[in-house]
Amino acid sequence: MTTKLEAALAHADAHINDSLERLKTLVSIKSISTDPAYAGEVRKAAEWLVADLKTLGFDASVRPTTGHPMVVAHDGDAGPHVLFYAHYDVQPVDPLNLWHTDPFIATPITGDDGEVRIHGRGTSDDKGQLLTFVEACRAWKAVNGPLPLKVTLFFEGEEESGSPSLRPFLAEAKAELGAAEIALVCDTDLWNRDTPSIVTSLRGLVGEEVEITCASHDLHSGMFGNAARNPIQVLAEIIASLRNPDGSVAVEGFYDDVAELPADIAALWKRLPYDEAAFMAGAGLTTPAGEKGRSVLEQTRSRPTCEINGITGGYTGDGFKTVIPAKASAKISFRLVSGMDPVKIRAAFRKHVTDRLPPDATVTFKEHGGSPAVSVPTDGIHLKQAAAALKDEWGNEAALIGSGGSIPVAGEFKKILGLDTLLIGFALDDDRIHSPNEKYDLRSYHKGIRSWLRIIAALAA
Amino acid sequence: MTTKLEAALAHADAHINDSLERLKTLVSIKSISTDPAYAGEVRKAAEWLVADLKTLGFDASVRPTTGHPMVVAHDGDAGPHVLFYAHYDVQPVDPLNLWHTDPFIATPITGDDGEVRIHGRGTSDDKGQLLTFVEACRAWKAVNGPLPLKVTLFFEGEEESGSPSLRPFLAEAKAELGAAEIALVCDTDLWNRDTPSIVTSLRGLVGEEVEITCASHDLHSGMFGNAARNPIQVLAEIIASLRNPDGSVAVEGFYDDVAELPADIAALWKRLPYDEAAFMAGAGLTTPAGEKGRSVLEQTRSRPTCEINGITGGYTGDGFKTVIPAKASAKISFRLVSGMDPVKIRAAFRKHVTDRLPPDATVTFKEHGGSPAVSVPTDGIHLKQAAAALKDEWGNEAALIGSGGSIPVAGEFKKILGLDTLLIGFALDDDRIHSPNEKYDLRSYHKGIRSWLRIIAALAA
Repeated sequence: MTTKLEAALAHADAHINDSLERLKTLVSIKSISTDPAYAGEVRKAAEWLVADLKTLGFDASVRPTTGHPMVVAHDGDAGPHVLFYAHYDVQPVDPLNLWHTDPFIATPITGDDGEVRIHGRGTSDDKGQLLTFVEACRAWKAVNGPLPLKVTLFFEGEEESGSPSLRPFLAEAKAELGAAEIALVCDTDLWNRDTPSIVTSLRGLVGEEVEITCASHDLHSGMFGNAARNPIQVLAEIIASLRNPDGSVAVEGFYDDVAELPADIAALWKRLPYDEAAFMAGAGLTTPAGEKGRSVLEQTRSRPTCEINGITGGYTGDGFKTVIPAKASAKISFRLVSGMDPVKIRAAFRKHVTDRLPPDATVTFKEHGGSPAVSVPTDGIHLKQAAAALKDEWGNEAALIGSGGSIPVAGEFKKILGLDTLLIGFALDDDRIHSPNEKYDLRSYHKGIRSWLRIIAALAA
Repeated sequence: MTTKLEAALAHADAHINDSLERLKTLVSIKSISTDPAYAGEVRKAAEWLVADLKTLGFDASVRPTTGHPMVVAHDGDAGPHVLFYAHYDVQPVDPLNLWHTDPFIATPITGDDGEVRIHGRGTSDDKGQLLTFVEACRAWKAVNGPLPLKVTLFFEGEEESGSPSLRPFLAEAKAELGAAEIALVCDTDLWNRDTPSIVTSLRGLVGEEVEITCASHDLHSGMFGNAARNPIQVLAEIIASLRNPDGSVAVEGFYDDVAELPADIAALWKRLPYDEAAFMAGAGLTTPAGEKGRSVLEQTRSRPTCEINGITGGYTGDGFKTVIPAKASAKISFRLVSGMDPVKIRAAFRKHVTDRLPPDATVTFKEHGGSPAVSVPTDGIHLKQAAAALKDEWGNEAALIGSGGSIPVAGEFKKILGLDTLLIGFALDDDRIHSPNEKYDLRSYHKGIRSWLRIIAALAA
């Protein structure tokens, strides 16, 4: 196996430019899942993946859903069976004027530090990460023939828009996908540039859209100002009320089911190389907001939060309009940690808002996804094999750490397919995912491919 | 003079449908001054007015400025000299989906009460009001030949976008426009359907755009949530802080220069027929917001206010995006009453915001117009003549009352041209100016034309 692995690694190294060309092609397809205008592009990305996988000998197909399609592909007929998941859809690119390069032209740029960064929407989240595994399979097969284990690929096209078709699809394809013994998900970060990571917990998510209505129509502020209830003012007061003076979330009962980090895990986290100031500086910030007395690591990975993701109301164009609008709305999300019930948190939030409505203000809520936090057991054989393989590639031990993000698919794999998940990814904190100028280091892409080759070999051993 | 007036009134009555056709034409020109995309339409409206006025024998011309053009026209060579002002630009029409008719097709609709209402952007504010005076001149000249007084018409195309060219233009055209002895402005309301009004005070306006910046770029809320300062949260907390629990404005020193209404004026206002509940119900509201213990009439006409006119930040499209935006911004305006200094209020507001910035939040301010409140003396001969003419037309005494709106031109006429202004208009509370489904009652239009005929005759007497 070692010889085969060495040969595959050498092939991957020699053909990294070809791997980069394929990433460029995938990035050029504008698969923005949340915007219905791009539905054709999402489908095109699925079809491109299927066509490419067929050239590798995968039994690949586009699977329709009531939303965007899934891609499923099988290969290999001996050894353990793994289910690899990633998503091929991306976030919207606005505000477009803040991008330094075309978001849909993956553009390698060499930094002053000599690092090559591939700029473009989805280079990191998640097209680049998706292709690390595909390119690993390609390299293995190119030099060794058949894969040393059974591989089922499962690519989603709705991850960035709440995964509405995921549950029904998993239920329907349970026999086909649940035949694997472990799931691999590539949608997470390295611990740092030199330290790999296996994510052992993920925060859950509750998304809410809140619309406040006061008057029956927009009013002139000179005629009605003062006397007419202003929905922007009402919404601002409600948002302001969501945090206590100490930075904690003020929704009643929000922390009721939140446990402190176990002492041994907290000790482990303390030993990890982590530069709080550098993390903040990467975002142009100096001073942690949020819960006073909690470290940034805790706040972003083991504590729940409430964030305002968007707000709009009244006149927002150029110039000025002295209007009192009839409506104002906000998109608000909660990240949940282990133990918190999304249904309970959503209800508590809605009560918090409703309790604060002044006369003449009404509210409507719209649900945008809800999923609990997920924990992954840290004592399985697959995790040990993968951790060893990652150490071989990176030199440093893999960090076993909670992630602040929400990857609901890991919870669904456990619930519907009965599978545990290893969350292994090669992104970095500063990849600007979901933002203008998203990038993926060429080093992440290249060593990501090499990491999967080592993990494939380790799991097949 | 009485015979000439009767003849002109009869002509106006007989040709009201022709007057309506001209309003339709003017409304069809999309003269939205705040949006640069409509600059050509604004110019087209100016040119249409000039062409129409030339057919009446006016010496009319489009006057260029560094912004949108002015229209100036002269006619008459005997009698007192009046300067009539109105504006031909209009507010934007968004949100377009809330309009029941095309905003740029003036559409008469007969209500269940038998009243004919002309729907369309600018029918009331201010194209319909502008044309009441032009149509009065037309009727007079059609039956009597020369006007009985010297008339200078002055129409602005930037009233809805902060009047950036007004001051320099008035300074430049001071000799030409300041030759009048009184200014007439038609941009205000009737007291009610049956009671005319002459506005004796106008609130001033301070417009501010506030942009809060935290991170250097948009962040992923799963990676940075809690620890990264959220500019929407910061902006919401600042907006919430602008009002005290008793509904008063919380900016320091805001009420320092605000006087209580003089007892005699307060007594006069109390006698006016005014249904507070009906006024609120016209906006779909039941309960006055704002300063506790102040009547709606006071709050909207003799008290200053602070209103949030627009807010935007983060993702506001369809679906959901778990972003912590780098920036959030709001448009905020203050209505000022007599005694308040716009410069002082703007500075106090900026200090209020700056004092409340948490770490990592910075602010930029953009000025959108500033003008003090204006008071008109109530003992002049022209006011007495106009009030008598209005009583002849409407049957009821004209209400001499403060307006909640801001018409900076009256202040500029006084300051630059040395002219007092009579503010006489025929709009109604429920005209939905600045809103979808703006309308102007045909009765307002028709009796407005008749009112000006009577005022012209009275001033010339």
